[in-house]
Parts: sequence; structure tokens; C-alpha cells
Amino acid sequence: MSGANEGQSGAAGFDSELSHFDASGRARMVDVGDKPVTGRVAIAAGSVRMEPATLAMIRAGTHAKGDVLAVAQVAAIMGTKRTADLIPMCHPLGIDAVDVRFTLSDEPARVDIEVRVRVAGRTGVEMEAMTGVMTAALTIYDMCKAVDRAMVIDHVRLIAKTGGKRGDWRRVDPVPTPTPAAEQ
Amino acid sequence: MSGANEGQSGAAGFDSELSHFDASGRARMVDVGDKPVTGRVAIAAGSVRMEPATLAMIRAGTHAKGDVLAVAQVAAIMGTKRTADLIPMCHPLGIDAVDVRFTLSDEPARVDIEVRVRVAGRTGVEMEAMTGVMTAALTIYDMCKAVDRAMVIDHVRLIAKTGGKRGDWRRVDPVPTPTPAAEQ
Amino acid sequence: MSGANEGQSGAAGFDSELSHFDASGRARMVDVGDKPVTGRVAIAAGSVRMEPATLAMIRAGTHAKGDVLAVAQVAAIMGTKRTADLIPMCHPLGIDAVDVRFTLSDEPARVDIEVRVRVAGRTGVEMEAMTGVMTAALTIYDMCKAVDRAMVIDHVRLIAKTGGKRGDWRRVDPVPTPTPAAEQ
Amino acid sequence: MSGANEGQSGAAGFDSELSHFDASGRARMVDVGDKPVTGRVAIAAGSVRMEPATLAMIRAGTHAKGDVLAVAQVAAIMGTKRTADLIPMCHPLGIDAVDVRFTLSDEPARVDIEVRVRVAGRTGVEMEAMTGVMTAALTIYDMCKAVDRAMVIDHVRLIAKTGGKRGDWRRVDPVPTPTPAAEQ
Amino acid sequence: MSGANEGQSGAAGFDSELSHFDASGRARMVDVGDKPVTGRVAIAAGSVRMEPATLAMIRAGTHAKGDVLAVAQVAAIMGTKRTADLIPMCHPLGIDAVDVRFTLSDEPARVDIEVRVRVAGRTGVEMEAMTGVMTAALTIYDMCKAVDRAMVIDHVRLIAKTGGKRGDWRRVDPVPTPTPAAEQ
Amino acid sequence: MSGANEGQSGAAGFDSELSHFDASGRARMVDVGDKPVTGRVAIAAGSVRMEPATLAMIRAGTHAKGDVLAVAQVAAIMGTKRTADLIPMCHPLGIDAVDVRFTLSDEPARVDIEVRVRVAGRTGVEMEAMTGVMTAALTIYDMCKAVDRAMVIDHVRLIAKTGGKRGDWRRVDPVPTPTPAAEQ
Repeated sequence: MSGANEGQSGAAGFDSELSHFDASGRARMVDVGDKPVTGRVAIAAGSVRMEPATLAMIRAGTHAKGDVLAVAQVAAIMGTKRTADLIPMCHPLGIDAVDVRFTLSDEPARVDIEVRVRVAGRTGVEMEAMTGVMTAALTIYDMCKAVDRAMVIDHVRLIAKTGGKRGDWRRVDPVPTPTPAAEQ
Repeated sequence: MSGANEGQSGAAGFDSELSHFDASGRARMVDVGDKPVTGRVAIAAGSVRMEPATLAMIRAGTHAKGDVLAVAQVAAIMGTKRTADLIPMCHPLGIDAVDVRFTLSDEPARVDIEVRVRVAGRTGVEMEAMTGVMTAALTIYDMCKAVDRAMVIDHVRLIAKTGGKRGDWRRVDPVPTPTPAAEQ
Repeated sequence: MSGANEGQSGAAGFDSELSHFDASGRARMVDVGDKPVTGRVAIAAGSVRMEPATLAMIRAGTHAKGDVLAVAQVAAIMGTKRTADLIPMCHPLGIDAVDVRFTLSDEPARVDIEVRVRVAGRTGVEMEAMTGVMTAALTIYDMCKAVDRAMVIDHVRLIAKTGGKRGDWRRVDPVPTPTPAAEQ
Repeated sequence: MSGANEGQSGAAGFDSELSHFDASGRARMVDVGDKPVTGRVAIAAGSVRMEPATLAMIRAGTHAKGDVLAVAQVAAIMGTKRTADLIPMCHPLGIDAVDVRFTLSDEPARVDIEVRVRVAGRTGVEMEAMTGVMTAALTIYDMCKAVDRAMVIDHVRLIAKTGGKRGDWRRVDPVPTPTPAAEQ
Repeated sequence: MSGANEGQSGAAGFDSELSHFDASGRARMVDVGDKPVTGRVAIAAGSVRMEPATLAMIRAGTHAKGDVLAVAQVAAIMGTKRTADLIPMCHPLGIDAVDVRFTLSDEPARVDIEVRVRVAGRTGVEMEAMTGVMTAALTIYDMCKAVDRAMVIDHVRLIAKTGGKRGDWRRVDPVPTPTPAAEQ
Repeated sequence: MSGANEGQSGAAGFDSELSHFDASGRARMVDVGDKPVTGRVAIAAGSVRMEPATLAMIRAGTHAKGDVLAVAQVAAIMGTKRTADLIPMCHPLGIDAVDVRFTLSDEPARVDIEVRVRVAGRTGVEMEAMTGVMTAALTIYDMCKAVDRAMVIDHVRLIAKTGGKRGDWRRVDPVPTPTPAAEQ
């Protein structure tokens, strides 16, 4: 009998800083059972760059009808709830609050997305916030792709987290320099 | 009696190029029932930028153990199948093939992701390919965030689509100029 | 050896008109494999009755902000896509189009919901349309329950179906007499 | 730069009693993070009205075989667990108990459904109980629609809730006057 | 720049008979887009072995009340619909029919499960039938584990498949010799 | 008026040891609301028997590429998170840790699977561990079925549980005698 894991681990074991792998290099859901339940918040952000005409359409919709952002808002909130279904090693968590904000900016033309998630739990909600941003961005893409297929989702990133053993973290440069329109 | 939709539509109706809204500005799932079933392919791409040390860890894992990309590969394929669950106006579709490729690049340090989806259907699979890229990117972020919380997901975009009434489309500049490391 | 099914079926077999059971009385997903793929449409409707003040709030939201119906619209469309996850014997189906309409009415104060679903398939989309109405109604309840816990969801019903072997069907009295406010 | 949210909120902010919207009118998942975890129960009810012959079939099945209600019972319990997937602003919650009861009544012919849900949490389970009733009702409709397409789901309503900051609530008139058969 | 896939594939490529990997050894969803749509059926089976007293309880329930198998029947049908959500490389498919049969046997005491699934599609439904058996078996375990925690799920296997390019297949020895009770 | 539940329960009530049924024989989700939150662990195991040549392929993949077990590992972890979606009476639970181990054995040729799940909750995670084993086994079957359709999933069983009111439990004979290859 020869074990698959034995074959993977070698003589010395696997000394990774990536906590989602064990000593033999196998993926696992990290054990958070000994962590205390604490209040935790995560904020993530991202952008959808687009043609100025596309942005103008979205902006018009926020006032009256054909509101792309109202659909993306619902999608983002629902997306945070699907995080553990999508991301293999994510712990399933309750969620205490989700807040989604859109800002329309012009140079370059884009929708900036910010999602804030709060929970009392044994592990953080960074992935919930990131998944919320991605779902909002994809929904905006989907709603507008008939007129602007070349839109780009950019700068999806964690802005800050609070709570948990490792303490608070805040991005040093939370607002990225706008990517020049020429880049794409 | 006064209708909500009537209240939204105004006298003139809503003349949007955004097909996910009807004449009164209400969101809807676009009717594709009269389109023919044709073979369709979509390719999307994106990147996860990171510290060079993080990239080195991922690269080491592809050879032996602690393989971040093997997990992300599975997540991406499963993510394409959840597209219609996440994106409100997406049609539920069968999928005939999904292919996920990762390329590791150094300046700046990043994992480039490409997802190709194929279907025979009445509408395209752009969103499935985009969602696959997003799920891979988020999974890489999740697997490595313990060592590099500042990673950024960038340039999530459609590369090409073929099939369907509107014909083929290919991005003019499919490979983005690397975003300078200083930007973040 | 004695079979469970044998024990259930008795000597004579089970002669039900309920096609979701077989001759021995066991539940099954009806075999539609020999039916042709045809275009099918189903329309369902329902109402949420409420206090006039609640209706006034919803009506105000349709013009500007705090739009309950915009959220319910998205929920209804997404709900149609979850039908086969919820209803045990429902066949999983693609969906070609979903259309959701709300009408605000005053005596009694209520939101009337209508959902139309279209597909090309081997079986109809009645349950998808009904589930869409249900999801819209529950979402309206959820959004407004903090101010009006006594709201009632009523008259959820099929209005019409077209396509399929059994042909078209249309409700004889599609608009129910408003239920008197005194009834609840 | 002009913000979408800014554009929506106006000078004075949005003073809604609908807690699922913030001051600018954007939908959000209400923050329950500061509420205590308490025991909570919700009871919801509803009816499926049908032809007397349909009711007779269902009644026959409860004794022996072809048991529509056994299927609906399972569907209702599973439906309560999908609530946060369906209702956009619902918090994902554990559930400690679900109880589903059916009563068959004759004038008019109908199945009355009652669902009781219990949890220890920061927010109530009204929506879980309501979703359980709706899933049971839709399943009954689905199982019987081949013989009675005109069935109507009626009177889906909250009966009582206990626990939580706002205290207990009980419907004043929990048993609705039967809707006359002539109405539909 | 050095590619992750390049690093995995080596000079000669990867010559696997496992079609769910490509030439470089990466997992993929096999491309079935060029296969014709044909009628396909798969039958899978399995057993849950238990104490004779547990079997007696289940047998009593099939006649009257406390019917474990009625719950497992619904679970099995719903489980077949979740196959592509659970099994990473499975194609999402419609399903045209699902049939679940239980047989109670005494030496050793066990419930034998058989699930038959039918579809018209580009790939087979073996996994749907196998997943249906698994879901039924796990549900029986769950319903009875309070009285018999040592139950064993055994012999989950494909019995037959028909349709598709590779033609029909039928297990040579479809009925396994009962595993001796002493073995566990 | 005659109640369906009344009809089922008879004069004396239903005195079952199966806690998932109430006194009238109706299925329910057992009320765990009065149980304390305690740390709980469950370990389940199972095997996939196969041709020696199939095992050789899997073994080769663990070292380099075409790694069937890497895919099954991810599927198993994600499968544990879907338990309450699949098993009707299962309580939805958070999960604090999941660990999946594979061992390759030769006589008979098989992959042995072990899944360990940990949670702090009001009820145990036996079903999560069992579902993880089943999902791993089905994924191995799916990945290899093109070369070995006759594989058998066997001996899926609980090995141990700790925590909870009823205390710890450990299987008396945790390692089953290998089923002779001739049996199938």
C-alpha cells in the first residue's frame, strides 16, 4: 500500500505560508474553530471602464428608468451571499450587513463600485466583499454589453478590513491612479 | 387606478439601446426565443497582480504540491456553470465545453487567466466566460490573501466571441499594456 | 425479500390522473422525452394586499428612490431561474424570456404582479411563471414588512399557457374580484 | 465627477421607514450586527383552493399512495433553506427547526398550509416561514396541475412572530373568511 | 515569462486516456459541442445496509406514516438536478425523466436503490443517475442515523447506459453478492 | 372539515424513534434550538474500487499532471458546503474546517477517501462528512469513467463523531475487510 498523500508530501513535509494547504500540500478549508467570534468588516472596491456614451446612458438611468445600477445593486448583495458556493476554500458564513455604492466618474469614463460587508464570525468577510464587487461589475457589463462590448473590469481590490486576530488592515493607496484610456 | 409601469414610462416611452430594458424602462430577460440555435464561443481574460514573492509561491506549486492554480482551475469551471444564478438577466444555458488557462508573468508579477466557453444556443456565452475568469481570480486571491492582501484583479475583459446574429467580434488590443507597479 | 414498492402498490396498481406518480404511487419526474420541442409561453399573476399607506410608499419609490418594485423585478426574474431547484418534480429548463409587470391599484390597496415566461422545450413553463410571481410577492413583503407586517399575498394563479400537446389554455375569469379589505 | 448616489439622494436625503433602503434610497441588506442573538419563531400560513375532485384525490393519497402532501412537505422544508437565495435583502441564517402542517378543508375545497420556523439569530425568520408556505403551495399546484390548472394560491400571510427587539406580534384575524368559490 | 501550463506539460505533452484533462494535464470540461443530440438513458444502483430493526422501521413506514422512503424519493429526484453543481467537470443538462425505486431486502438487511434518468443531449446522464442514488442513500442515512449510526452505503455503481457515440453498455454482474454482515 | 394530519396519525399517535418524524408521522426538521452550541467533529470514509490500470493512472497523476485527486479534493470540500441543499431534513450549518485525505491501495485496487469536518453548532456534521466522501467518490468516478465504467463506490460510512449531547461515538471496526474483487 502506498498513500497518495505520502507520495505528495515527500520526506520533509511542505512548509507553505499559504494556509489553505496542509503540510503535505493538499488543499483544505482552514480550521477556524479555535478562533473567537468577533465583529468583522471588509470593504472592497473595483471599477468598470467604458465608453463615455455608455456612461452617459447609465447616468441617465439613475434618475428615471432603465436603471442599470439598481439591477447591479441587487446582484451585488445577492452575490455576497453566494461566496462560499463559488470560492472553494471559503467558509460558509452568515452576513449581518451589505452596503453597495456606485460612483460615476468621467476621466476615464467608469463606474466605481464599493461593497462593505459586516459579520460576527470566526473568519473575515474579505471574499464576500470582493465577490460582491465582481458580481456588480459583471452585471453592469451584462446590462451594457449590447452597446459596448469592450468594457473592462479593473482594480478589484480589498480596501480595508477590521476585526480578527491579525487586526486591522487598510490599503496604503486605496484610490488607484486612473488607468489611461489609451491602455486598452 | 394608476399603473406603476405607466408612471415610469412617461408619455413617449423609453428608447434605450440597452436591450435588457423594455420600452417603459423595466428590466427584463431579453427574449431570445426567435433566435436560431447556433454554435457560439466566447473567450474572456483577466489578471491577478501580486508581489513577486507571491508569484514565486504559486509557480512552485504548479510543479509539485500546494497548487493554487489547480484549485482555481476547478473553481473557474464550476463558476461558469453558476453564471445564470449570479447575473440577473442572464439566460440559463447548457455549456458544451470550458477551457481555463493560466500564464505566469513577471513584469509586473501576475497570473493571467483565460477562459474559453462553447455552447450551441440561442444566445452567447460571454457572461459565462467572464464569470469563469472572475471566479478563478477570486479563488487565487482567496488562496494567497494570507500572504499578500494587496493583490489586484485587473483587466477582466472579453477577448473574442463567435457565432450569433451579430457575428464575430474580436478585441482590437487583446493584450493590455501591463499596468505599472507604481500605480497601486 | 419483500419490495417496498410492491408493498405500496397493492394488487391492482394505482390508477391516478396525477402524472407525477407512477402505477405504484411513487413520485417521479414525468417522462417528457418523447414530447416534441415546441414554443411555449405561460403567464401567471398574483397580488400583494397592503395598507394604503404602504402602497403610497411603494408608489413614491417608483418615481425616484427607495424603489421596492425595482428590487422585486430583479428577484422575480432570478426566481424563475430557480424553479427546478425549488419544486421537486419540475424539469430543469432553459428560459428564453421573462417579463415582469407591476400594477398599483387602490381598492383594496395592492400591487398586482404579472410574469410571462417563454421557452422552446418539451414541457411548459407554468411553474416558472408561478415561481416568478411568488418571488416578486415575497420580495415586496420583505421590503415592506417593517411598516406593514399584515400584508397578504393573494390570487397567485395561472392566467394562460400556449404551446404543447394539450394546446392552449386561458383562465375564464382572469381578473379576480378584489377581495374585500374587511376579509382579513 | 458626479456621483450616482449623490444624484439619487438630493439635498435633503431620503427619509424612508423602509429599512431596506438607506438615506439616499439605495437598497441594502439592513445591518443587524448590533442586535443580540435571541430565540425567534415565525409562523406563516396560506391556502391552495381547488376543485373538490382535486381535493378528493389529495385526500386519498394521504392514506396510501400517490401522496401529494408528502412531496410538498419535503419541498416546504427545503424551501425554507433557500430563502436567502431567493429574497434579495434577506440575511442568510441558520435554522433550528421547521414544522409543516397541512389541513384539508371543504368549503371551499382547499389545502391549508402552516409553516413554523425557529432560529436563534440576530433577525427573524418571517421570510423563511413565508417562503416555506409558498414552496409547499407551488408544489401542490405542480403535482395537481395536470387535472386542475385553475387552482389558486391565496391568503399567504404571517400568523405570528416571537422574539427580537420589536417583541411579539400576532395577527388579529388569523383565519380568513373563505373566499367564495364564485370569485375566481 | 514562463507559462504555468508550459511548465506542466513538458516537452512531449500529456497523453492521457482521461478525457477530462487536456494535453498539458489541466482539468477541463470535455468539449461535447460536436456530438449529436441523441436520446440517452442511464441506470445506477446502490444499497444502504443497516440493522434488521432499522429495516423493520423503514418497512413499517412505507405502509402508513413516518415514511423514510417517501422523503428519500423526493431527495433523489432533486439530487439528480444538482449534479452539475456538485461534480466539477459535469456538463449542465436538462433532464427529461427521473425514476427512483427502492427494494427492501433482508440478508443482509438493506434498502436497494435504483435510479433511472433520461435525457436528449450531447452527453450522457450517468453522473445524474449516480448522484440520485447517492442523494437517496445519504437521505436514508440521515433519517435513520439517530437509531443506527453504523449503516453503510455500498455498491453505488452504474448498471446500464444507452445512447451516445460509444453505444450501449450494461454491467456484466449487475446484482452484487450481498456483502456478509460480518464484514463491517 | 377533516385534517390530513389527523388522518395520518390515527388514534394513538406515532411513536417513532426516528426523530425526523413527529407524533403524526410527518417529516420535519428536528428542533435543535434548545441544544447548546458545542464543538463537534465528524469523520466519514469510503472507497472507490477500480481496475488496477485505472488506479495506476490516478497514481501517476498525483505526482505530476492530470491529477484526478486534486479535482476530487476541491469537489469534496465544496460538497460539504452543499449538504443542507441536498439532504432534506439537514440543518443549515456553518463549517469551521474540512480536511480530505486520499489513500491509494492495491488489493483490491481502490482509492480510500476520508473526510473530517468540524463545526461549533447545535447539531453534528455527520452528514457534511458523509456528503464530502460521496462527492469525492462521484468526482473520481466521473473523471475516470471514460476508461473504467464499472468502478464501484463502497463502504461509505461514519468513522467517528465527537461532541454533542449523546457524546462521542467511534465505529467498532473502522477498516472494512477489502471486498473481494470477484464480488462485482
